[in-house]
Amino acid sequence: MNDLALILPTTALPDALRRAARAAPESGIVELANYGRGRDGLIPLWVGEGDLPTPSFICEAATRALAAGETFYTWQRGIPPLRQALAGYHTMFYGRQFISEEFYVTGSGMQAIQIVLAMIAGAGEEVVIPTPSWPNAAAAAGIIGARAVEVPMAFGNDGWSLDLDRLAAAITGRTRGLFVVSPNNPTGWTATSADLSALLALARRHGLWIVADETYARFWYGEGSRAPSFFDIMDAEDRILFVNTFSKNWAMTGWRIGWIAAHPSLGQVIENMIQYATSGVAQFMQRAAVTALERGEEFAAHMVERARRGRDIACNALSATGRVRFAAPQGAFYLFFSVEGEPDTRRLALRLLDQANVGLAPGTAFGAGGERLMRLCFARNAGQLATAMERLGAAISSN
Amino acid sequence: MNDLALILPTTALPDALRRAARAAPESGIVELANYGRGRDGLIPLWVGEGDLPTPSFICEAATRALAAGETFYTWQRGIPPLRQALAGYHTMFYGRQFISEEFYVTGSGMQAIQIVLAMIAGAGEEVVIPTPSWPNAAAAAGIIGARAVEVPMAFGNDGWSLDLDRLAAAITGRTRGLFVVSPNNPTGWTATSADLSALLALARRHGLWIVADETYARFWYGEGSRAPSFFDIMDAEDRILFVNTFSKNWAMTGWRIGWIAAHPSLGQVIENMIQYATSGVAQFMQRAAVTALERGEEFAAHMVERARRGRDIACNALSATGRVRFAAPQGAFYLFFSVEGEPDTRRLALRLLDQANVGLAPGTAFGAGGERLMRLCFARNAGQLATAMERLGAAISSN
Repeated sequence: MNDLALILPTTALPDALRRAARAAPESGIVELANYGRGRDGLIPLWVGEGDLPTPSFICEAATRALAAGETFYTWQRGIPPLRQALAGYHTMFYGRQFISEEFYVTGSGMQAIQIVLAMIAGAGEEVVIPTPSWPNAAAAAGIIGARAVEVPMAFGNDGWSLDLDRLAAAITGRTRGLFVVSPNNPTGWTATSADLSALLALARRHGLWIVADETYARFWYGEGSRAPSFFDIMDAEDRILFVNTFSKNWAMTGWRIGWIAAHPSLGQVIENMIQYATSGVAQFMQRAAVTALERGEEFAAHMVERARRGRDIACNALSATGRVRFAAPQGAFYLFFSVEGEPDTRRLALRLLDQANVGLAPGTAFGAGGERLMRLCFARNAGQLATAMERLGAAISSN
Repeated sequence: MNDLALILPTTALPDALRRAARAAPESGIVELANYGRGRDGLIPLWVGEGDLPTPSFICEAATRALAAGETFYTWQRGIPPLRQALAGYHTMFYGRQFISEEFYVTGSGMQAIQIVLAMIAGAGEEVVIPTPSWPNAAAAAGIIGARAVEVPMAFGNDGWSLDLDRLAAAITGRTRGLFVVSPNNPTGWTATSADLSALLALARRHGLWIVADETYARFWYGEGSRAPSFFDIMDAEDRILFVNTFSKNWAMTGWRIGWIAAHPSLGQVIENMIQYATSGVAQFMQRAAVTALERGEEFAAHMVERARRGRDIACNALSATGRVRFAAPQGAFYLFFSVEGEPDTRRLALRLLDQANVGLAPGTAFGAGGERLMRLCFARNAGQLATAMERLGAAISSN
């Protein structure tokens, strides 16, 4: 081959790809993060991760397993001790006895989403998603040939709320599921028990699956140790698939480990879907995840407390600009806000990157209803966050 | 929820899933491996991995990165040093200068396959696969709604060979690609340069993509340091996507790291496909992969030499039974053989598990043309392999 040919841009090859693959959108967050990567003094509030590395007691569990030679193929569904630890964790927080057979280890929360979507929807079918919402679910649906139907939530004086009539109206004969992220990324909206019951009633009425993304369950600023959950109201025969991740509670974003919780009767199908995706998660990583669940509660609580404080800092600073509108988040660890007179948030994000050296994600990345807003992640130490907010406040006020 | 309801088997939930997900087959290898897992004294020759754990100098690179806090989100396409190391590795073995932008790190070779298939084929479309062949590609095609069209290879006195007329006849208006595993798992067949040229000509003539699974390129028992490759004969504009893995050369089966090699013009699409699958591979694992490429050549050569010796041991022992038919493998590390008077290889595999305490994979797992054969992995230390072959020989001869 002529070496030069490699570096010549060409559209011939991309044009020959399947349309759904070509149509998969570039992440609106990754685009900015790649643009700003490596800038000196940049405070990155654009992605959903904090500033703490994984605690060393968790890393050391992986290190020990590596040294012990746990480098061979393992169980597709996850190693038994991890499935048991997940059952124990849920038993502790969700008020009933869970069993190992309800849990399946995946190569990230993202993969959990990819798998459950492929379990329920195929080409020409639809999944209804209240938006704004983390965009990756819609994109993953598109890749399998399904369509994500975005139904904007209402954003009024009381903050964000579900528009149940609009959701019901979006359901057609092609609809196979509802995808619900609560606590929500990016809005911070968190479904009440009444919201969850209404969604479940809707799903039951139409024979739909619910995908419950409860990644941020522990990042909850109301009463109790976690947000309201579909686990609270469901029956065993309900069509609900839960997706979750180790990323947020235990500062393990880079590990790519998540889980699916589902009825044991779905076990063989889930095993097969894992088999033909990545065939399982490295055993030495799973050992770290066991340690996170069994010994990481103090750390997780610390993460939540830190986010609670970050929330106050971010809300106060943005309120002080007098130019910003937002609903104080009830859960998760993002502030989702609009700036008066700034409708083009991708441009605004680039300006704030240059003027304040703070990275934010444009709301255009989060689907219908998010276009005029910006997402800021406040899961970060108070000192650095205060600095970021000071710089941001100045840049926002100055224009 | 009633706790008891969870453990009651039910078909209601599986029946409500998408058909293509329900239809994903249980792996014929995993079924047996799960059946025999943990048996005392079992010698497992059923899966494609050897008996050596990952070398410690590779593990330690991951350990160091973990201790250094490399636990955050990273580049979707792979960290730059790993893409550079992949380019260097290919430059060393494939006779031209490769560049980083041709390489994309994936969460296993399996995921590389999942991604490239989704790039080329969707619902109602077809991918033609010469079989017997590793079954996961066909299953992954099925999950995205495409169909794997199996075209059996010929098995004559000269061993396995491509049936080009039959391949050409299998191409229809719905065909989008050819999936070629060479050196082949499970047959050991390895495409000659003439075979590769014929396949490429066929693909060019019909505007098809080729997926080149060159996982076993280094496990090659002919002339030179690796098997013939599509890299040898392709032009830059050819529609070829390469999938590969760290699993075999560096005893990293359990890590789940692989790569795609493709023209740089496909970079953004591949990045997006990774983003919506697992969003990248843990950075600390990628550091280990860099070390494997940069310092692992001696180990890889040792693995190949061991396999060459294992091949001789396995071939000699099976020949001595007088009841076995096979073609000596030209590449990869499997012996694929039939036993006279034993057409039901799933049953035979179970019997050999019980009588010889040796795990083999039934040929039914490898698609059309493999039904009456058994796969044995000989990538193992000579002593243990000789024991396994002695036990197997006795069990086969005794019946």
